[in-house]
Amino acid sequence: MAASKSTDRVTAAVLVIGDEILSGRTQDTNIRTIATFLAPLGVQLAEARVVSDDQDQIVMALNALRSRCDYVFTTGGIGPTHDDITADAVAAAFGVSIDVRDDARALLQAWYDKQGTEFTPARMRMARIPDGAELIANPVSVAPGFQIGNVFVMAGIPSVVRGMLEDVPHRIKGGMVVEARTVSATGAREADLAPALSELAAAMPDLSFGSYPWMRPGTPDAPRFGVNLVVRGADPDALDAAEQELADLIRNAGGDVAGPDDTPGSNA
Amino acid sequence: MAASKSTDRVTAAVLVIGDEILSGRTQDTNIRTIATFLAPLGVQLAEARVVSDDQDQIVMALNALRSRCDYVFTTGGIGPTHDDITADAVAAAFGVSIDVRDDARALLQAWYDKQGTEFTPARMRMARIPDGAELIANPVSVAPGFQIGNVFVMAGIPSVVRGMLEDVPHRIKGGMVVEARTVSATGAREADLAPALSELAAAMPDLSFGSYPWMRPGTPDAPRFGVNLVVRGADPDALDAAEQELADLIRNAGGDVAGPDDTPGSNA
Repeated sequence: MAASKSTDRVTAAVLVIGDEILSGRTQDTNIRTIATFLAPLGVQLAEARVVSDDQDQIVMALNALRSRCDYVFTTGGIGPTHDDITADAVAAAFGVSIDVRDDARALLQAWYDKQGTEFTPARMRMARIPDGAELIANPVSVAPGFQIGNVFVMAGIPSVVRGMLEDVPHRIKGGMVVEARTVSATGAREADLAPALSELAAAMPDLSFGSYPWMRPGTPDAPRFGVNLVVRGADPDALDAAEQELADLIRNAGGDVAGPDDTPGSNA
Repeated sequence: MAASKSTDRVTAAVLVIGDEILSGRTQDTNIRTIATFLAPLGVQLAEARVVSDDQDQIVMALNALRSRCDYVFTTGGIGPTHDDITADAVAAAFGVSIDVRDDARALLQAWYDKQGTEFTPARMRMARIPDGAELIANPVSVAPGFQIGNVFVMAGIPSVVRGMLEDVPHRIKGGMVVEARTVSATGAREADLAPALSELAAAMPDLSFGSYPWMRPGTPDAPRFGVNLVVRGADPDALDAAEQELADLIRNAGGDVAGPDDTPGSNA
């Protein structure tokens, strides 16, 4: 795949396919799973999209993303039912044919034989693979994903996504690993940190600084609000220095530096 | 805004702005919040995108989405810090100027006066509003969002998004209300339901049918897997009929119909 050095910026996009997510019935978690899986490999998520189970929408989004990013990861729509149209849409996007393929069929046949389950035409749908694709192993439920060009086509079920990702690292060439450090302030207002944060960001232009306020139901003796200051970059020494600067900045503004981020995964 | 009848399809897109989501540090929940808020108003989420804190990316995505959908909702990047660039990017996308505006400044001034907090230049940043926009009230933390054309610009903090959405319904004209009904099967395999589901979908073309398998850690006496069958449509009578057909279909395939969806909000 792409030749890259450890100082190159290598990017990926996620394309989530499913009316289920757009309707709000299901909360997507795959974007975050993929982002955190790729980061240590030196691949940064640059964009994510959610589109409906519609071939034109999938083709348009996939073609935009695969030309713009080094890698694209799709989730959803590769099961056995009539609304599973991702494999056909991906074949259409690449302009290749698609049919049941022997290697995929053999995997499924062995699995259903072992379970004593009938290998029905619906199940056979999951062996449809675009011409020229390589299979991605599914350690959870066998039905494979596939890679075609720089696009990795995976299932929608989060546990299956996590399983399929294990078959990805040897296929990609990462670049610069961007690490994030969080310094969490309790009882501080974002706007009171803003001037010093802006100066710090200007003074350390190789790092990227973000400020993420949070609020939550409070108790009389615990602050109800705070700010997570996040610094991202590739140089551990610079990150160490920035982390110290962020802690000083919070204390200078009258806030308390909390331990490891106490609002992980949510800014609610 | 758009003139629409109750039989028209009215669509919206969500544009989530933030390195914070793309890095995987924070789990987005705003897409789902907005989708479920709009559905009863007759507005269907047609697409969602997550882009980084980069003006070119924001402008490009916003211009694509606002021409394609009836409404666009952005979240994130309207706070007081250097990385809050959404208002400027939206102004650029619309080709209008942006400056501190008196009505927004007055709201903030009154709030900070009441709290005895200094109205600093950083806080003044939150009064920057593109020319021609209307403010969106923020009942949580006062700093307003704004509407310009068919675009609603909101904060990133989920509780503030929920608050700002309350100031939205009177500004939009919804169309057909699409309702979803879920019939949950435990101990059924998606592929065993697929043939009958496909026939049902063909027989009821005004409805949209989806099939969403799930897996979870099981106990010896409880199935570890199942399928949520979801039917969406605008006609309550047709939905009632479809719901009954889905229950029959599950029982005919040897599965059990569960009570109200017992895996809400997750397909893990």
